[in-house]
Amino acid sequence: MKEQPIISVSAAEMQQLKNMIPDEERLFIGDQIPEDYLYDEYVEETGGLFAVALPKTKEEIVQLVKFANQADLSIITRGAGTGLSGATAPTNGELVIDVHLMNQIVDFDEKTMTLTVEPGVLLGEVQEFIEKKGFFYPPDPGSKHSSIGGNVATNAGGMRAVKYGVTRDYVRELDVVLANGEEMKLGSLNIKSSSGYDLKDLFIGSEGTLGITTLIKLKVIPLPKTSLSAIAAFENLKDATDAVLTILKNGVDPTALEFFEKEAIEMSEKDNHLAFPSQKGQAYLLITLDGDSTASVERRMKLLEESALQHHLIELVPLTNPEDDHTAWFLRDKLLTAVVNYTEQVTMDEVVPINHVSTLYQYTKELQAESGLEMISFGHAGDGNLHTCVTRGDIQDQAEWENKRDDVLTKLYHKIDELGGLPSAEHGIGLIKKPYFEKMTADINLAIMRKIKAVIDPDHRLNPSKIF
Amino acid sequence: MKEQPIISVSAAEMQQLKNMIPDEERLFIGDQIPEDYLYDEYVEETGGLFAVALPKTKEEIVQLVKFANQADLSIITRGAGTGLSGATAPTNGELVIDVHLMNQIVDFDEKTMTLTVEPGVLLGEVQEFIEKKGFFYPPDPGSKHSSIGGNVATNAGGMRAVKYGVTRDYVRELDVVLANGEEMKLGSLNIKSSSGYDLKDLFIGSEGTLGITTLIKLKVIPLPKTSLSAIAAFENLKDATDAVLTILKNGVDPTALEFFEKEAIEMSEKDNHLAFPSQKGQAYLLITLDGDSTASVERRMKLLEESALQHHLIELVPLTNPEDDHTAWFLRDKLLTAVVNYTEQVTMDEVVPINHVSTLYQYTKELQAESGLEMISFGHAGDGNLHTCVTRGDIQDQAEWENKRDDVLTKLYHKIDELGGLPSAEHGIGLIKKPYFEKMTADINLAIMRKIKAVIDPDHRLNPSKIF
Repeated sequence: MKEQPIISVSAAEMQQLKNMIPDEERLFIGDQIPEDYLYDEYVEETGGLFAVALPKTKEEIVQLVKFANQADLSIITRGAGTGLSGATAPTNGELVIDVHLMNQIVDFDEKTMTLTVEPGVLLGEVQEFIEKKGFFYPPDPGSKHSSIGGNVATNAGGMRAVKYGVTRDYVRELDVVLANGEEMKLGSLNIKSSSGYDLKDLFIGSEGTLGITTLIKLKVIPLPKTSLSAIAAFENLKDATDAVLTILKNGVDPTALEFFEKEAIEMSEKDNHLAFPSQKGQAYLLITLDGDSTASVERRMKLLEESALQHHLIELVPLTNPEDDHTAWFLRDKLLTAVVNYTEQVTMDEVVPINHVSTLYQYTKELQAESGLEMISFGHAGDGNLHTCVTRGDIQDQAEWENKRDDVLTKLYHKIDELGGLPSAEHGIGLIKKPYFEKMTADINLAIMRKIKAVIDPDHRLNPSKIF
Repeated sequence: MKEQPIISVSAAEMQQLKNMIPDEERLFIGDQIPEDYLYDEYVEETGGLFAVALPKTKEEIVQLVKFANQADLSIITRGAGTGLSGATAPTNGELVIDVHLMNQIVDFDEKTMTLTVEPGVLLGEVQEFIEKKGFFYPPDPGSKHSSIGGNVATNAGGMRAVKYGVTRDYVRELDVVLANGEEMKLGSLNIKSSSGYDLKDLFIGSEGTLGITTLIKLKVIPLPKTSLSAIAAFENLKDATDAVLTILKNGVDPTALEFFEKEAIEMSEKDNHLAFPSQKGQAYLLITLDGDSTASVERRMKLLEESALQHHLIELVPLTNPEDDHTAWFLRDKLLTAVVNYTEQVTMDEVVPINHVSTLYQYTKELQAESGLEMISFGHAGDGNLHTCVTRGDIQDQAEWENKRDDVLTKLYHKIDELGGLPSAEHGIGLIKKPYFEKMTADINLAIMRKIKAVIDPDHRLNPSKIF
């Protein structure tokens, strides 16, 4: 961490800030700031902060933004702090607006199937609340402790994107506060629009650089009546990912279509003292089908099996037993934790066109042979989103690890670019993928993004130095 | 039409243009311009044009754009010329770039389920081509003779939006030429992205004001295995639209959910000498269900009936007989033509949150009583998109009709705004809805749209004076 930067804020201004957020436990200034805000486990070196404020209302946010303008402070908006790209890491004396106390589920309108929530509501709370009412919020990012505001800021994806899409597809309307404190509504409850530029989608995924979200209206859908998961075991990952293309083409319409190698799931098995319900083969697909009837799911499960058999399926294990289902998904969910517990590593979030998943996977194995760094891949095969972990293993020397790691990452991102892929599918660019993103993005696209940032936030007050 | 504007283009420049587009039948200058380009049936007064060029390649488009920069001409991009909002109407001496000769289906990649087309390919050609291959391009705007480039420019919707979404949801990648002749790619074949600002969605629906589309990569999906339509007859439109909310909430998952009054379908019956397959009640829903099996469709048809019975359904007529099915949809498709044949009228394209459809409909009937102008409504009940026709009937006096019409439109758009609606769901703002759009859009949203336009097209060269 850098030295705390020197911010010239007068005593009168300091008092003004304290009057704005009158509760002591909602405002931390200078050396009172809890450690948690100052470090980011994914960013090697972070800067200091001026203050952290925890507003409870939109009005307090507006006041804080106006204060930041007056005192010439930059602003970082923070939700649950579960981001994986360093988008909320301090860089140089920012004011953090932490919205996690704005955590009310405001309204559910069954007629328009719209759920209105504050940005600090956790994803898990959204899912639980709405499923109790018989409805469904499909986006399903790994961390149920992430905030819905953060989900919007990163356009979070998750397991069910292959059938249901991502956060973007479920945001109807956003209330935002702009960099100058002005308020704005984006989108509407209307299902269709051909009325002017689509500003809502510009703000979604902009990682706190264009505005601060204060209220979110989400689309929900009727809860599927039934679902069933299964494991498909293959001799190698190429067969598994080839099968994915056939499964999608044949209209199996899977809700989730995860892939991982035996090596990876073994780490999770060891870490959790549980056995994965298939022990055959070297690569797996973990699949969920949902639908309006058992008959429909069963019919598509058969179609799935036929599709997979064209690619040397070893066995299909339907997880009809709830315990097996739980074990399989639990081990999948804990994959990353198992890798993290095993060794220091960098987890990527790359995406490639779905026909290139196995090419990219093969390339990680080539890099593994070349560099000696073990590369573990898992991810969402149905949408081309891999999470490749570049692991340190038993390299003792810090410089050797850093050099090898950086070399491998450079080569990997270069390959992803070559395959028409992107550096981030669902976690965002933040601080840590910025150099790769800038390299992989055409100059004209970057130039237009920068120009748009400059007209919406001319002082670069909101999360500066993030994304690009 | 205004006088042809005087454009100062030198003889040398004129020759340059002729060298660029060497075929006589692909370049029309000044008084050689066919009438069709100079008028727009939806715009009362249009300006003149400088020239019309019909490029066959992206390279020709780049040259034309550079020429327009050099000669300081504005550009209108035009597809099939089927737009309903005057977005391609001349305003003051523009150069029209008509892309309808760029009409090649370039590639179909089954692995990524991506169809690559030039912008001049017609929607009907896209649908026919891909269905023959066993795949499905769901967006289904009324005009099959519209160009796919125009569909992208207006974010066209259509009948199947309630289940499958709109054009926006099926555009993976766009190649565009910017106002200065620079080329740019938007989007990618990747299914997920959290990599920088979403510029693709900004360009979709921008009605030719941000760039000229030269290539489009569309997402297609497996063709549904079976489908069945039905008519639900009700005593009044309120029952019908209330039933829509219950149908959607109960997970019937309709592909299409159209509504119209008996009065409207009677016009189409008379015009086409055909009888609609239900003659009971005063308001109808015309519904399609599709799915992976007959059993699934039948089960949901039963659920549909149960849902409609909660709202005083008079009869449900499943269109199992292909002839009935054809008649019902043919009469629905010809509704607008029937109204047009009956009298002069203005067709709107408003959208309101789905729970407000019947409120808006009631209001059109109040305005009818007040103004004496007959108001005929039909549209896409499943997504809140009405097409209200304000008809002239037997008003002889031109000024009286214009005054009454404008008064009614002003009141209607005011009501739509009050209900949280928008002026255009799927046709675009163009020229004719501009005043209403500007009134219904918050100043800050308009200001940001204008700023974005100004940084992407600083000379306002592309379709100036459209949208805002």
